[in-house]
Amino acid sequence: MAERIDPWGSVLIDDYNKIIENYGMEPFDKKILSKLPNPNRLMRRLVVFGHQDLGRIVDAIKKKKDFAILTGIMPSSEKLHLGTKMVIEMVKYFQEQGGKTFVLVADLESLATRDVPLDEAKKRALEFYIPAYIALGLNPKKTVFYFQSKNKKVRDMSVELSPRLTLNEYRALYGEPSAPKIISSLTQISDILFPQFDKVQPVVVPVGSDQSPHLRATRDVVRRYKKVDFIPPSATYHKFTPSLDGSMKMSKSKPNSFISIPEDPEKVAKKIMKAKTGGCDTIEEQKKVGGKPEECVVFELFKQHLIEDDKELDKIFKDCKSGKIMCGGCKKKAADIMKKFMIDFNDKFENAKRNISKLNILEFECE
Amino acid sequence: MAERIDPWGSVLIDDYNKIIENYGMEPFDKKILSKLPNPNRLMRRLVVFGHQDLGRIVDAIKKKKDFAILTGIMPSSEKLHLGTKMVIEMVKYFQEQGGKTFVLVADLESLATRDVPLDEAKKRALEFYIPAYIALGLNPKKTVFYFQSKNKKVRDMSVELSPRLTLNEYRALYGEPSAPKIISSLTQISDILFPQFDKVQPVVVPVGSDQSPHLRATRDVVRRYKKVDFIPPSATYHKFTPSLDGSMKMSKSKPNSFISIPEDPEKVAKKIMKAKTGGCDTIEEQKKVGGKPEECVVFELFKQHLIEDDKELDKIFKDCKSGKIMCGGCKKKAADIMKKFMIDFNDKFENAKRNISKLNILEFECE
Repeated sequence: MAERIDPWGSVLIDDYNKIIENYGMEPFDKKILSKLPNPNRLMRRLVVFGHQDLGRIVDAIKKKKDFAILTGIMPSSEKLHLGTKMVIEMVKYFQEQGGKTFVLVADLESLATRDVPLDEAKKRALEFYIPAYIALGLNPKKTVFYFQSKNKKVRDMSVELSPRLTLNEYRALYGEPSAPKIISSLTQISDILFPQFDKVQPVVVPVGSDQSPHLRATRDVVRRYKKVDFIPPSATYHKFTPSLDGSMKMSKSKPNSFISIPEDPEKVAKKIMKAKTGGCDTIEEQKKVGGKPEECVVFELFKQHLIEDDKELDKIFKDCKSGKIMCGGCKKKAADIMKKFMIDFNDKFENAKRNISKLNILEFECE
Repeated sequence: MAERIDPWGSVLIDDYNKIIENYGMEPFDKKILSKLPNPNRLMRRLVVFGHQDLGRIVDAIKKKKDFAILTGIMPSSEKLHLGTKMVIEMVKYFQEQGGKTFVLVADLESLATRDVPLDEAKKRALEFYIPAYIALGLNPKKTVFYFQSKNKKVRDMSVELSPRLTLNEYRALYGEPSAPKIISSLTQISDILFPQFDKVQPVVVPVGSDQSPHLRATRDVVRRYKKVDFIPPSATYHKFTPSLDGSMKMSKSKPNSFISIPEDPEKVAKKIMKAKTGGCDTIEEQKKVGGKPEECVVFELFKQHLIEDDKELDKIFKDCKSGKIMCGGCKKKAADIMKKFMIDFNDKFENAKRNISKLNILEFECE
């Protein structure tokens, strides 16, 4: 399937090639795709566009060796976005391939960078983020959760690693450094290594490309830290979901072009009905020359989030190109599926919330 | 007594006036001295040359209100120097005036800046530093000890305080910043505030002037932190003990001019016999014109460390000035007292080590 979908490309494919080059990623291409068992929608359609050392994970899956998956919760507000949905879909994929999952609550980061008190972060994590992650597909039975602030080993390691990056390196990775950013970065580096504290093993961290500095910082630090022979972390990088107005990345600063999770099903449907498409100015013209799905935000929503069946997606692409279907119909279809997603999410969220006490949350002993 | 000793000044008095000016200290003078009950040798002789907000502590002593004393252990090697001896003498003084003492082991700082593993830091603290502090006069019954790494409240506060100083401010305080320095500084700031976590109270931190950046940083942060109305910490600043060769500060880099604690009694005596004095080139000349005790390292040792009785010190000063006594005799006297001090230290140290299990070391519960 992937081969047929691949050439459709993305609205902003050039930028992703630049990201791969600038940030030293490897492209996620058909070659690596062919080695992954049962690739998910995001991989098949190359929404995952880059990776680092994913070969190690492919190898672990194939040989049924131990590997770990790591992701985080930044408890800064009480909304997720479609990028988080993609992260969890990637985590779910690797969980199904046998990985042990670690989900950290970045309560030290939200304290340092957003002044969120630790008890407030804990509340938000337990009452919103963790159930939301489960509603998005995270398997809690294969997951260990922890709070950065309570993980003394992670905190100690972050201090121990602190001399391994210079301020100029922080500047190159994260822009102008500050004490809160440095503390957050060191804690995240230590989080990424945490699954290897007891036993070194490959670890994959699925992220949006904006998170790549943490991965690069960790890989730099691992090279310089000689006491443990940590395996450099692997990563997958997925594209942004474009803003409904067609700009590169959804942003909360434009609420009418932004889809949050959760969101009122009727409201989100209305927003989608106003999305930028790849259609012509008139229906007559579109019937004649066809639409441009490769420039259409609604088609991108189908591809990234809403349509699971590759054949169905392929048919929409072709029918749009040939002028057989019009934008109104596609928007209606997208709005309906998204509405269903939001209703479904709420059900799963409430269910997960009811079962929150059953989670495996790491508790730490004081030495 | 103080009045008579005061005008003798110090070998490097001008520099201390500059330090007071440059670092925004208040001079420690006869006025503040007159308000302190039973001032110790270092205060009477103005070896304590500067302070910050010591009035708060004077007031607490007078009104028998709660106040705290804080000092730290940097477990980076297994030697103390005469500066530490002065710190502990100041702590001892404030303990006797009713202060509750906190002694922290800066194991996070030694991990970050010297790569000392936490378990090694713990070993050094329990087997050397804490018994040595007790041997120098610290009253363990009035002291709470803790390890930075185990004090979650201190660590959490250091993260919370991290946005309250800019990197430019770190640079102004500590020179070119680095991640380990920033972490160490934030942890120390948090340590200095720790005695106020449960209840705000005046805290005095007796230090050598090289430690003043931590105090200034803490005072800056306190002004900006609005959630708790912390009282800005008070401090006393004492002079350095000059190097035996007459340069401003003893340094390990010149071992023959450096007195460490502990040190072999015979060796230390030999070093003192070679110290720079304020004597003349010939005995004949010195008998005629007298010596210069105000430029004499041996006299400075008498004043700062070796002679408790002000009258005795005064007599040495006058007899030197008038050419009645010669340098050989003074060096012999200093060497003998220092030898006795080292032997006495060892006895007390061994005794404190035997009783180490009785200390009040803070243990922390995990929440």
